[in-house]
Amino acid sequence: MNDQLLENVSVPGFKACALYCGIKKQNKDLTVITCEKGAVAAAVFTTNLSKAAPVIVSQENLKHPLVHAVVINSGNANACNGERGLSDAKRTVVKAGELLGVSPASVLVSSTGIIGVPLPVEKIEAGLEKAMPLLKADGLAEAAQGIMTTDTFRKLAAQSVTLPESGVTVQIVGFSKGSGMIHPNMATMLGFTLTDANIEKDVFQKLQQESTDITFNMISVDGDTSTNDMSLALSSCEAGNPALQPGTKDYEAFREAFINVQKTLAKLIAKDGEGATKLIQVKINGARTEKDARLLARSVTTSSLVKAAIFGRDANWGRVLCAMGYSGGIFNPDIVDLYFESEFGSIKLMEKGAGLIFDEEKALKILESSTIDIVAQLGEGSASAEAWGCDLTYEYVKINGEYRS
Amino acid sequence: MNDQLLENVSVPGFKACALYCGIKKQNKDLTVITCEKGAVAAAVFTTNLSKAAPVIVSQENLKHPLVHAVVINSGNANACNGERGLSDAKRTVVKAGELLGVSPASVLVSSTGIIGVPLPVEKIEAGLEKAMPLLKADGLAEAAQGIMTTDTFRKLAAQSVTLPESGVTVQIVGFSKGSGMIHPNMATMLGFTLTDANIEKDVFQKLQQESTDITFNMISVDGDTSTNDMSLALSSCEAGNPALQPGTKDYEAFREAFINVQKTLAKLIAKDGEGATKLIQVKINGARTEKDARLLARSVTTSSLVKAAIFGRDANWGRVLCAMGYSGGIFNPDIVDLYFESEFGSIKLMEKGAGLIFDEEKALKILESSTIDIVAQLGEGSASAEAWGCDLTYEYVKINGEYRS
Repeated sequence: MNDQLLENVSVPGFKACALYCGIKKQNKDLTVITCEKGAVAAAVFTTNLSKAAPVIVSQENLKHPLVHAVVINSGNANACNGERGLSDAKRTVVKAGELLGVSPASVLVSSTGIIGVPLPVEKIEAGLEKAMPLLKADGLAEAAQGIMTTDTFRKLAAQSVTLPESGVTVQIVGFSKGSGMIHPNMATMLGFTLTDANIEKDVFQKLQQESTDITFNMISVDGDTSTNDMSLALSSCEAGNPALQPGTKDYEAFREAFINVQKTLAKLIAKDGEGATKLIQVKINGARTEKDARLLARSVTTSSLVKAAIFGRDANWGRVLCAMGYSGGIFNPDIVDLYFESEFGSIKLMEKGAGLIFDEEKALKILESSTIDIVAQLGEGSASAEAWGCDLTYEYVKINGEYRS
Repeated sequence: MNDQLLENVSVPGFKACALYCGIKKQNKDLTVITCEKGAVAAAVFTTNLSKAAPVIVSQENLKHPLVHAVVINSGNANACNGERGLSDAKRTVVKAGELLGVSPASVLVSSTGIIGVPLPVEKIEAGLEKAMPLLKADGLAEAAQGIMTTDTFRKLAAQSVTLPESGVTVQIVGFSKGSGMIHPNMATMLGFTLTDANIEKDVFQKLQQESTDITFNMISVDGDTSTNDMSLALSSCEAGNPALQPGTKDYEAFREAFINVQKTLAKLIAKDGEGATKLIQVKINGARTEKDARLLARSVTTSSLVKAAIFGRDANWGRVLCAMGYSGGIFNPDIVDLYFESEFGSIKLMEKGAGLIFDEEKALKILESSTIDIVAQLGEGSASAEAWGCDLTYEYVKINGEYRS
């Protein structure tokens, strides 16, 4: 869906708003999502050993059966702040609970921004008071804006799907922030996917994990994993469909749409990588196992040499094979076929593990596109995977090499 | 030892030379090392699944008890050339064997340069004929020059050590090429360490592996592992000492010097990383295990965010902690102390997992050095590790984004 058409998207049962509370120098920095009747929640968090305080508090509060609200601040990650960080994250959920008249244990908190600087929790508390009257059903586009840091555009995706068996139409709206850096933060990925489909918690969690593995976990801007990464899915369950059960056609239809929304967000994040000028889509086909395919695809999107070559419109297929070779994924390099593709055409660069003489002008033309597909045919099995990344540019170095002061 | 003093280094039993045979546009591109009586060899090769033909041939020939010669060409990696690549690598060792009157199975071959382009093996064969009369005992500095690709300086290190028990003085000379890129190659590390110490093959191999793990395997320029990486150690065993046995003082003295030579080369490679302006030394102390310490140290040197921050003289300790967090190494982030150090001073940035308020001007001054130490005290055990990398610069992107054409 065209981004402008998403301005008023909503999901029954949810309200949201975003406002400026004074953490950043300017721009909205506090976002609130609420679900009055309580939402079923599923979440995936950073695997980084250094977890920010909001990650720890939200993981704990997800034990509560329902989620009534999520408070997201940008401008400060509340990471590496020791005991005070945890205490500040807890104060945030307590304040939101009071204002909404719900248990603090049913409130989640999420932060992104500068690390190692104490959270200005009083500003968040005051901001939460101001937020209450602003909550509205069509506030999701505003929320997508509110969680941005140095993202150059908002990441918002929506899909409605009519479940074939029950005939019920359900909504799925997702928004995320990508690997923008704020002065002097690290890249952080936050994702929120809301739906009204009736689904039980354990089924929802399983789907969220499955989808994360092939969407958000397949993007790389620079290979770094943040202390604050969090992808949260919430369902108000208000659509009235019979609870979705794996194996049914209704579940399959929902599953496809749900993954599609998160995949759209994942690609938008990759495309908006720091300093990026091109989206790189790596497609591994014919692998022995999905695990191998994913390792291979991710390794190519993470290689600085591949990323720099794509920036320079250099059809350097050797670097692709090399990145596959050290990925940990199993394949036979002697039977690989490799293609570079874009809307300007397709070119075969390697056949059965040996380089081909190819039309350099055609390759250059293909690489002029803003979206480049790198496609490998392994010829070993039927598993496949796709990963997304971006090119490595002067601008990336500039953004990330800037003095914090 | 000052590099200029190394001009005439030699190791008893070895001869070497380097010349131009026509693979590159200019500069020496063919290097030959010989050991008339045959050398005991120990080697470590790339773990990349895509192995270049010379790697495959050399691995096979290392089954021969002695090595009589090593042929190294730059300008062409002879990788991804299918059956022809293997055949060309074999022709190289056959020709060298004929000229030297030794078994082709006692000749190793090593290549670095463009990949996917057939090796001009006739030029190498003709070059080998020209090389024979040029072989000389003091040709090692020339060899160090001959294996360079876009390295901006040669990497050569030498040490002599008097074994305390036998009183015999042995020589160790090493040279390597680093992660320079030649048009359009990937980074490749080649290393050659020669000695005259009497040592048995299995003891030598064990030491070579041990040393590689804490020297060449602890450097990162961009995290990519090449198809052609090879580190070879050769001993002429001419020094006359009793064969070195682990557990003895003689062995320990030799071991220390051997590792020291390879560590010097490793640091030189990191310092000469593509576009690099600074050497980054990451020191992890107080880890539970050496494995954890190494994973943690390497992850920091590989992080693009850390590398860009150091380029920008940004004391961004949060990125360091973050890179440690996703390294796979186990540690407790809540008790880490972190320092940035250089010849201009030391500054503590983090204590027990929480950021400290620090003197930004002092930090900036420290980061002006061309060698930056990042030191983490984990407080969990007594294991430690050191890794070396370089900053991420505009020049890196330029070098690696250039069109091949």
